[in-house]
Amino acid sequence: MSSQRLRVSCFSISLDGFGAGPNQSLDNPLGEGGMGLHGWMTKTRTFQKLHGGEGGTTGVDDDFTASGFHNVGAWILGRNMFGPIRGDWPDDSWKGWWGEPTPYVPVFVLTHHARAPLVMEGGTTFHFVTDGIESALRKAKDAAGGKDVRLGGGVGTLRQYLRARLIDELHFAVSPVVLGRGEHLFQGLDLRELGYEVVRHATTPDALHFVLSRASR
Amino acid sequence: MSSQRLRVSCFSISLDGFGAGPNQSLDNPLGEGGMGLHGWMTKTRTFQKLHGGEGGTTGVDDDFTASGFHNVGAWILGRNMFGPIRGDWPDDSWKGWWGEPTPYVPVFVLTHHARAPLVMEGGTTFHFVTDGIESALRKAKDAAGGKDVRLGGGVGTLRQYLRARLIDELHFAVSPVVLGRGEHLFQGLDLRELGYEVVRHATTPDALHFVLSRASR
Repeated sequence: MSSQRLRVSCFSISLDGFGAGPNQSLDNPLGEGGMGLHGWMTKTRTFQKLHGGEGGTTGVDDDFTASGFHNVGAWILGRNMFGPIRGDWPDDSWKGWWGEPTPYVPVFVLTHHARAPLVMEGGTTFHFVTDGIESALRKAKDAAGGKDVRLGGGVGTLRQYLRARLIDELHFAVSPVVLGRGEHLFQGLDLRELGYEVVRHATTPDALHFVLSRASR
Repeated sequence: MSSQRLRVSCFSISLDGFGAGPNQSLDNPLGEGGMGLHGWMTKTRTFQKLHGGEGGTTGVDDDFTASGFHNVGAWILGRNMFGPIRGDWPDDSWKGWWGEPTPYVPVFVLTHHARAPLVMEGGTTFHFVTDGIESALRKAKDAAGGKDVRLGGGVGTLRQYLRARLIDELHFAVSPVVLGRGEHLFQGLDLRELGYEVVRHATTPDALHFVLSRASR
């Protein structure tokens, strides 16, 4: 059996259970109020360094942020995580929210609309997968060079993979904000029936971190 | 205007948003797995003292537990919080989950089934209110001698009062457990639209505490 895992890391949720705010748009990639979910992370040294900054906090928040990138050989993203465009791709101009830097490893974007692979200057290639979540997982594992695959989101994609019991480990951070509406992460999902249990938790001034793993493993 | 407030204190919720587990029964007053929600509280000095024990932790968890009893002149409970009996009261034998000690202040129990007031040896009287949540609130405020009214729960009762925008302040504690199913606290409620915002939060090794207050006040 492969020891490659499909992992979710640093996924922030609000006190009322939302993983993103409503009305995602170019101005609000995480939906209205969604950026407030990530206060614990944006101040960390790892996050600052990834975005060309200096300084930042160390400790538990930073450790979780950094470990999310350890041993990751490929990413999977839902299309809404890749960008705000819906339906057919109008052209090839949209290259993700990030610009450079990108994750530097292959990224598989789930979509119903075919598109040629997009090669970024930093070396990252975005592959567009139109034949479903299991296919994307196979392709990502093949491309990951024996390392884990990180599932970046968004909420809808994460829920699909949860229902299919394909995720081995998930790290979430509950942030002290209420969103009121948006994309609810766990609604209608029975995490225990899906086989998940809390294997670790830690609190910091800005978040309650918890890690879920499949109990049967 | 009255300065009396309707408050919720020490209401624990799971990581997946449940305020109680499924299948409440005599053996599981909080539903299956529900006791795990209260790990942060049961170890506190205040809780231990209330239950005739000694010792217990001090600090933030204990401060929240203790402040939940400060300046409380009456309680409101939903019927399921008072006990597991549904429908007509078979007799007067059920006297609440607690036995003695009871809260020592008047308690108003919401029910559709009339019952004579129940006077406990410690002095607490349980009043059974059959004409709705607003009536119960009026009666509780009248009985509270100028102090606040604490709404004890359960989930269904809390949701009714939230929807009616009758609660002034709520303290919740997110506990690091998943329940999978049970009574979901916030599902379908838009806390921001209802006027609530986070006015305080604090973390401890066992919980993420947060306090909601009506923004307009």
